[in-house]
Amino acid sequence: MTAGPISTDTGSTGFEPGREPAVARRPQGEGTYVEPRTGNAASVKDAPSVPELLARGRTLCTPPLRAAVARLAAPMDTVAAYHFGWIDRDGTPVAGDGGKAVRPALALLSAQAVGAPAEAGVPGGVSVELVHNFSLLHDDLMDGDETRRHRATAWTVFGPAQAILVGDALATLGTEVLLDAAVTGGASAADAARAVRLITSATRKLIDGQAMDVAFEQRDVVTVEECLEMEGGKTGALLAAASAIGAVLAGADDRTSASLQRYGHHLGLAFQAVDDLLGIWGETEVTGKPHWGDLRQRKKSLPVCAALAEGGAASRRLAEQLADPVGRGEESEHVLAARAALIEEAGGRSWTRDEARRQHRTALAALDEVPMADEVREHFVALAEFVVVRER
Amino acid sequence: MTAGPISTDTGSTGFEPGREPAVARRPQGEGTYVEPRTGNAASVKDAPSVPELLARGRTLCTPPLRAAVARLAAPMDTVAAYHFGWIDRDGTPVAGDGGKAVRPALALLSAQAVGAPAEAGVPGGVSVELVHNFSLLHDDLMDGDETRRHRATAWTVFGPAQAILVGDALATLGTEVLLDAAVTGGASAADAARAVRLITSATRKLIDGQAMDVAFEQRDVVTVEECLEMEGGKTGALLAAASAIGAVLAGADDRTSASLQRYGHHLGLAFQAVDDLLGIWGETEVTGKPHWGDLRQRKKSLPVCAALAEGGAASRRLAEQLADPVGRGEESEHVLAARAALIEEAGGRSWTRDEARRQHRTALAALDEVPMADEVREHFVALAEFVVVRER
Repeated sequence: MTAGPISTDTGSTGFEPGREPAVARRPQGEGTYVEPRTGNAASVKDAPSVPELLARGRTLCTPPLRAAVARLAAPMDTVAAYHFGWIDRDGTPVAGDGGKAVRPALALLSAQAVGAPAEAGVPGGVSVELVHNFSLLHDDLMDGDETRRHRATAWTVFGPAQAILVGDALATLGTEVLLDAAVTGGASAADAARAVRLITSATRKLIDGQAMDVAFEQRDVVTVEECLEMEGGKTGALLAAASAIGAVLAGADDRTSASLQRYGHHLGLAFQAVDDLLGIWGETEVTGKPHWGDLRQRKKSLPVCAALAEGGAASRRLAEQLADPVGRGEESEHVLAARAALIEEAGGRSWTRDEARRQHRTALAALDEVPMADEVREHFVALAEFVVVRER
Repeated sequence: MTAGPISTDTGSTGFEPGREPAVARRPQGEGTYVEPRTGNAASVKDAPSVPELLARGRTLCTPPLRAAVARLAAPMDTVAAYHFGWIDRDGTPVAGDGGKAVRPALALLSAQAVGAPAEAGVPGGVSVELVHNFSLLHDDLMDGDETRRHRATAWTVFGPAQAILVGDALATLGTEVLLDAAVTGGASAADAARAVRLITSATRKLIDGQAMDVAFEQRDVVTVEECLEMEGGKTGALLAAASAIGAVLAGADDRTSASLQRYGHHLGLAFQAVDDLLGIWGETEVTGKPHWGDLRQRKKSLPVCAALAEGGAASRRLAEQLADPVGRGEESEHVLAARAALIEEAGGRSWTRDEARRQHRTALAALDEVPMADEVREHFVALAEFVVVRER
């Protein structure tokens, strides 16, 4: 495990006893990016435990998520359960939390942002998880990715048809669970319909982003703006929906919803910038992805686009390499390491780090537009920090 | 072109001048199945023109359908336009109607069934067409089908990733156009939400049906009941939604919606029974599908399942052939012709014809449960006849 490119904020002490701070879960000095805390001493002191927030999201959202998946006809229920990490390929139950579940945590918080109980956001948390996993199932197949979260992807185990079908079914369930919220009385029919609009619109942006990503594979050069637009679709749209959907289910006005969505959108872009850094300089043990994977695939991620835009000598050498069809996908470790060095030399790594900071700050600024209880705001701030300071 | 298995009703004269009857479009004596008209002379005299009903559906629904598809980011808009038959693979506009468009016609009629203008059903007609075409795009890819409507399927032209993406996008648009109906004032927010529920539920059944169909490919025997369940999902669910969605948008009560859905469901099963007959005994020029295609793929369609259930000598020989892995997919025309004869000998052809009749009758009985203007009822009856008496 290498040290992160920016030294982590390890000086944030003063957490209440018994409330484990987010950073305590990580070896010190290993974050990929962190913005120094800007809050005053009191807010740092009261900072909530991110693991607790995530655990609450899982505790409240996983049972209804499992119930929704159990509605699928065989064998789709099995394929979905495997994909979520609940069972192995033989059907044996697997202990584990099935991922960080940041989106459900955000959905619950967003209900609290408008004064509703966290529980009001549950259908929203379930919906965003369903849509997120629909996109993972389809993207892995389209991209030919064979590994996710250290496991064989569903299409490699159950075949392409099942990956397509189960993805389709999860997307549909993502709408059904929101409509159910109105039936069970957890939300008004009008608010449930607004939540459906929110998730549907995010799903379309997500598909648009993936379409751009697929198209970029055929191109040698992608501008930074295009890359940000693609990442805004692939990552920003659903985090935006997650950050507002609980509020919408609880009757938030459009302005509050828009601000919360902006927070989530920029948080998504910050997350993606960090992800792009890890995709090149992250270690396989922590990322769960193949070493130099993004470079081997000649992925036009942010560091690459930024390096290509710089225009200096290293930038031009990089452009030549990426335009050269020879050895595509078969480059040695040595060649890929040299390419990573070129990207760094052309400023791609530092630009992306700065971009993560900018997006993180913009996300927090959007949060300031929404009046909410201090504790809820602190939770949003803590989750944002957790999302951008990470190794996987 | 061979004569249909049942002589067509060519004696229905007395149509009003200028209103071209449905059967006039077909060479006489060539329908695959028809129930003799049971109406009295007056209803026959006033019978509407099916081509006019279909043309109205296309005229009202195609512009908003195209507008919805135009919202897709490039190159998905092009892929979708190709799939719908609006452009060829080079992007040149193609003259043509893009299919029969029975579903939009049903959606418009269903609005009229509850006394609303046909226009109130337009968002429903657009939605069902979007969902229908989402399923075609994904199914063609899963099934490896290379031809549809006499043209190369989208995945063979633009690749699997585009077929997946565009399918996903169309399904999402199918929900968006319904939510838009509330925004533009064409429907109340509550009715739009009910319509979303209807289309979402149909989409899930449709996916379940396709999942069963995919699973059947690995099996040698499928019961008639399983086959009907699969076809109820793949074909019945969306025709059921089409037959009620305009009514729902116009504020129909649940009972009316349920009856109209039953009409559409059984109409779908009748349609599918005829389709299964054509899949074995239909000619390529009219079906647009490869000769003996269903037999070559060893598809467990209704005639096959019924023949296998019969249990006599021909039935057992058929079962042996289907269980034999040798020559799978490489059978000669001669072998396939002999297999078709075995299915007929075991009663699979006649059972399926009878089943089409039963489903047709059940559909019309469900229609009787809904009070509506005589003219609207006649239109439903005429469309049902059109759907089950056809060559393609």
